[in-house]
Amino acid sequence: MALTNPFYTPEMQGPYELYGLGEFELEEGGVIPDLQLAVATFGTLDEDKGNSILLPTWFSGTHLTWEQAYIGPGRALDPDKYFIVVVNQIGNGLSTSPHNTDGDIAMSTFPKVRIGDDVRAQQQLLRQQFGIERLHAVVGGSMGAQQTWEWAVRFPEEVLRAAAIAGTAKNTPHDFLFTQTLLDAITDDPGWNGGEYTSNTDVGRGLARHADIWAVMGLSTEFWRTEFWRNIELPDVTWNSAIEFKDRFIRAVFAAMDPNSLLVQGWKWQRGDVSRNTDGDLAAALGRITAKMFVMPIDEDMFFPVRDCKAEQALVPNSELRVVHSIAGHFGLFGFEQSYLQEVDDNLTELLSSEV
Amino acid sequence: MALTNPFYTPEMQGPYELYGLGEFELEEGGVIPDLQLAVATFGTLDEDKGNSILLPTWFSGTHLTWEQAYIGPGRALDPDKYFIVVVNQIGNGLSTSPHNTDGDIAMSTFPKVRIGDDVRAQQQLLRQQFGIERLHAVVGGSMGAQQTWEWAVRFPEEVLRAAAIAGTAKNTPHDFLFTQTLLDAITDDPGWNGGEYTSNTDVGRGLARHADIWAVMGLSTEFWRTEFWRNIELPDVTWNSAIEFKDRFIRAVFAAMDPNSLLVQGWKWQRGDVSRNTDGDLAAALGRITAKMFVMPIDEDMFFPVRDCKAEQALVPNSELRVVHSIAGHFGLFGFEQSYLQEVDDNLTELLSSEV
Repeated sequence: MALTNPFYTPEMQGPYELYGLGEFELEEGGVIPDLQLAVATFGTLDEDKGNSILLPTWFSGTHLTWEQAYIGPGRALDPDKYFIVVVNQIGNGLSTSPHNTDGDIAMSTFPKVRIGDDVRAQQQLLRQQFGIERLHAVVGGSMGAQQTWEWAVRFPEEVLRAAAIAGTAKNTPHDFLFTQTLLDAITDDPGWNGGEYTSNTDVGRGLARHADIWAVMGLSTEFWRTEFWRNIELPDVTWNSAIEFKDRFIRAVFAAMDPNSLLVQGWKWQRGDVSRNTDGDLAAALGRITAKMFVMPIDEDMFFPVRDCKAEQALVPNSELRVVHSIAGHFGLFGFEQSYLQEVDDNLTELLSSEV
Repeated sequence: MALTNPFYTPEMQGPYELYGLGEFELEEGGVIPDLQLAVATFGTLDEDKGNSILLPTWFSGTHLTWEQAYIGPGRALDPDKYFIVVVNQIGNGLSTSPHNTDGDIAMSTFPKVRIGDDVRAQQQLLRQQFGIERLHAVVGGSMGAQQTWEWAVRFPEEVLRAAAIAGTAKNTPHDFLFTQTLLDAITDDPGWNGGEYTSNTDVGRGLARHADIWAVMGLSTEFWRTEFWRNIELPDVTWNSAIEFKDRFIRAVFAAMDPNSLLVQGWKWQRGDVSRNTDGDLAAALGRITAKMFVMPIDEDMFFPVRDCKAEQALVPNSELRVVHSIAGHFGLFGFEQSYLQEVDDNLTELLSSEV
């Protein structure tokens, strides 16, 4: 029986539609009997279906951050110009996930999912629901960037433009180890119970440890040194110290989430690798990309550092490296700073309006 | 009753002497009834006692790494020239520590210790045992750098030269949060039992988690990307993957250690702050330093980043910033690379031979 978790509802995440893709076979051999993708769209699809932009989601994220921080009239991702499709990744708590499905794949029995599965499911969705066979652009951050890379490599003819923000085409060994500490923090909690808890609150200690590691790696040394958290505001909660910010913001965010959902996403993140399409040859994989591509690392990112992204960008024919600045490091993706959002918008505006 | 732990023996750590300082009052209000400092010396003290160099130890470290990696004839720290005194910090497992003491301060009842306590104890030791009242130099790395900074601020007339490698005068908020994840990994293990375990092996899971976080933060993204671990050799153990290196080297090292010892040291690390000597005014504290000082961050260090060290160095009158390179990040301190050791030696040779 599916668990009730108020975090994964339209009241918390904003409106979305569920689209069923039927039985969906996964790369690792598992099957999702009736894959449901949670999708939010903005704007109107042109008659020639030429104005669609796909936005996949990042680890623990939903369509909500895209909607609140990045999409809007006058912005680069302008619903007055584009038909913007935000697809929640498989296992993120809104699309089919361990806690919201019944039967053979509930909870601890949920199958392993790969980045490639998401991309194939998104392609199927776009064709079946909207008749879209070619994308004006794919834009993603972090695990969404992993999906963006995978789209550009796997279906080069179908992606005209791509922007990978703060994420790599092939996950690094350091990133694998980092992600493992996040996952182990959850599974080490006795309340996780092998994935068969009765409420995410049973795993409260594990989710707190998970959040604490994010506080160290997700932000930056400068963020903490300058007490940038004083500039971040939420309704109905305040903080007057670094520890209070960590507890009331970072811990609070993750405490609401489903542990198994984070585990499914984390396993997927660890294994993101476009060179699976080319027998392990990363240069060959990236050389296949025909999209005009902007590779956009965040300068203060501690685990998708600029140099890793730059090395990949150098292997993509029609690409440019566009480093963006955020004192919030990887969590800059949340859009805490107007300056960061402006940099992203400027780059995306240029990319989206470019001739290809 | 003290626990037996073979890691903290001369067989494992090399020879050392225990010097008793008698009853020692701590800044936080606790008392160590008979403080024992574990000390290893190299070279001969001049008659005028002018050739002594103090080397304090870092988190989880002992005098052994100094002896094996940094001290030797023809090196900067040359026992043919200098009388080198390596003092194991309080709580490090060799000097008085939770597991090796009986009575009122054993195990969970061990008092809180601060960097300033170590420095005062070292001063007392140097005077009582060796008659040393002024140091040719203090050289320390990481928590040893914290002690070096404290020496230079607290006893400026007694420190002629100082080198702080990969460590700050005032611990940063990011560092505090990072260290807390290390400590929580231990205390979250049910085997820790509030500090009253019967063997460090009871806390094996916690020590493994602790090690795993070190693997992410202690090294560097480049270390893992380039598989630098292939260049590291230990007797009787091999590794053929990043995971094997993590398990057989990093986990193995911490598995041997005493959990309460790491907790005492970590608490101390979190609170290192020379501005405690000047009512919280860091500039005033650093302005008191009269030693000729080299501030030597490691370029790939993820938690004592160059910019934090540079900002402090700028506040020290007679100082220079000397950035050293190690792909191993903070763990570069172990001396995996001949190039790193040569850079450190070149800087220390210049510092130690400078007129003051």
